[in-house]
Amino acid sequence: MYGPGDVRVESVPDATLKESTDALLRVTRACICGSDLWPYKNMERTAQGNRMGHEFIGVVEAVGKDVHTVKRGDLVVAPFAYSDGTCEFCRQGLQTSCLHGGFWGGTKLDGGQGEAVRVPQADGTLVRLPVGPDDAMMPGLLTLSDVMGTGHHAALCAKVGPGRITAVVGDGAVGLCGVIAARRLGAEQVIMLGRHSDRIRLAKEFGATDIVSERGEAAIEKVMELTNGLGAHSVLECVGLNDSMATALGIARPGGAVGRVGVPQDDIIPEGTPAFFKNLTIAGGPAPARAYIEELMPDVLEGRIQPGKVFDRVTDLDGVPDGYLAMNDREAIKVMIEL
Amino acid sequence: MYGPGDVRVESVPDATLKESTDALLRVTRACICGSDLWPYKNMERTAQGNRMGHEFIGVVEAVGKDVHTVKRGDLVVAPFAYSDGTCEFCRQGLQTSCLHGGFWGGTKLDGGQGEAVRVPQADGTLVRLPVGPDDAMMPGLLTLSDVMGTGHHAALCAKVGPGRITAVVGDGAVGLCGVIAARRLGAEQVIMLGRHSDRIRLAKEFGATDIVSERGEAAIEKVMELTNGLGAHSVLECVGLNDSMATALGIARPGGAVGRVGVPQDDIIPEGTPAFFKNLTIAGGPAPARAYIEELMPDVLEGRIQPGKVFDRVTDLDGVPDGYLAMNDREAIKVMIEL
Repeated sequence: MYGPGDVRVESVPDATLKESTDALLRVTRACICGSDLWPYKNMERTAQGNRMGHEFIGVVEAVGKDVHTVKRGDLVVAPFAYSDGTCEFCRQGLQTSCLHGGFWGGTKLDGGQGEAVRVPQADGTLVRLPVGPDDAMMPGLLTLSDVMGTGHHAALCAKVGPGRITAVVGDGAVGLCGVIAARRLGAEQVIMLGRHSDRIRLAKEFGATDIVSERGEAAIEKVMELTNGLGAHSVLECVGLNDSMATALGIARPGGAVGRVGVPQDDIIPEGTPAFFKNLTIAGGPAPARAYIEELMPDVLEGRIQPGKVFDRVTDLDGVPDGYLAMNDREAIKVMIEL
Repeated sequence: MYGPGDVRVESVPDATLKESTDALLRVTRACICGSDLWPYKNMERTAQGNRMGHEFIGVVEAVGKDVHTVKRGDLVVAPFAYSDGTCEFCRQGLQTSCLHGGFWGGTKLDGGQGEAVRVPQADGTLVRLPVGPDDAMMPGLLTLSDVMGTGHHAALCAKVGPGRITAVVGDGAVGLCGVIAARRLGAEQVIMLGRHSDRIRLAKEFGATDIVSERGEAAIEKVMELTNGLGAHSVLECVGLNDSMATALGIARPGGAVGRVGVPQDDIIPEGTPAFFKNLTIAGGPAPARAYIEELMPDVLEGRIQPGKVFDRVTDLDGVPDGYLAMNDREAIKVMIEL
């Protein structure tokens, strides 16, 4: 990606092993993320360009001598951050703060929207899949790299559980996975704030019990009506704008929790004072997707959750620029790339 | 209080019972709160004046016919908010969000800095003290009305516990009680950010293990030095300014928690994006002091904690205006009023 709206498919030098802890992956599936749309809208133009893509499944082609948990031929999924798996933060399950970790793409690392990726810290990062590369569950497994783990993180940070009315702000792929996560964690009432008919349909299929299509103050009023005037116990903020955060804080009841996973587009949290007087908990950040893969994978493999349905368009590598366009124009919820 | 710096001791109509759930209290001890200094600095001048004071102990002089838990002659402590004790939020221990509760003083209710107070929702609000009005533990018991409960709330919201390095931002009475609370909840290392020698002395007496007197970026660097470069697990924000919140978020380690009890002086939470990328939890608000009185009281009565030491000046009612001045000029940490 060279600038706003400028995504190109180009040949780059082959990915190779560099460190003894690296693995080399041939990518078989990848996708475009809602967060890829932020630079697609706003990035500063660069001459060098940034590698893109942080969600991928692939086959291990080679490993460094210090890699022990995966081997050549394994099919693996990579979370959207790499991590050593052994540092203070990884041991706590916060791999996105790994002391020796980082994020894919940019100018220094390969991106998942490509044929091959050098994976640093392969032992801490990759998780082997117990199926073949064309398994029917592949779309669902691919969501474990980011959106399903991110929805789950939002739900955990919002303290979702049985008896806790849950609301989801944002009807993108992460918000939709948030609905799945909330139901999976026991929420009986899940209110989706969204207005796009295809996304609302999917939200209902995933278990949303109420849809609020209003915005701003009207949305807050509507949620109050649905919650006996008190608000939701748990709110998943899956957008990252000031307005969406203000809505999230506005619909939370006193003592409630907002789990935020939308990458903030501003440096402040708005409505901090009302949140204070309601004793709200605000938690969240980049999901440690790696921490959740093992827990969520059986539910995907056995069909209990179907996050793969967020993919409503499939393309090959050459179609990636069009995929960005479709997601940016909201013609697609999420685009999967098959290689 | 009629305006900035303008506190007057005046005769007002006698407090009387109005509702069947009221109690009438003759105040025996009260105090001036750090939060009383915000209007003292900034309030808009009014002709009517606001009753002041929300921390008090008193003797029950009369009760309405629906009051059952306290009776004439009982010595009781009142938390800084009244509450019915039976609503959804009270049952959860969040009495500061009681659906039928509220706060002392202003123009509609009596304030604790006076001879008598009508106490609404007496059954849900008041807690009987098992000692006489001149007991040596009276200062400590008085802190249960606010500052000790507030420090405890900050510590709970910051998830203080054994093995979690704790930092306290703010060396006022609440921050000092936060040190007590953190040690009481098992924190071995407690870093106090403060610069006033009398307060630092008391912080050390309460169990602070490290003192950081720098401010801003320099304070953050110093805390990093003290925490192996990682930051504190638990941070108690006991001021409420943007700068102090930015410091609190800056010294928290990834995955850490900031418990905020300083009343925010601005409507936003600053540094929301760094907090996001560190996956910080931000929690807190007005402490449900009522929820904590029973738990903390035995520790006060048996001398295991000595929050009464935050009072370094005692006055009578006529001395209240001077008490405000002394606290505002930081010549006193906290002023107790004996009646």
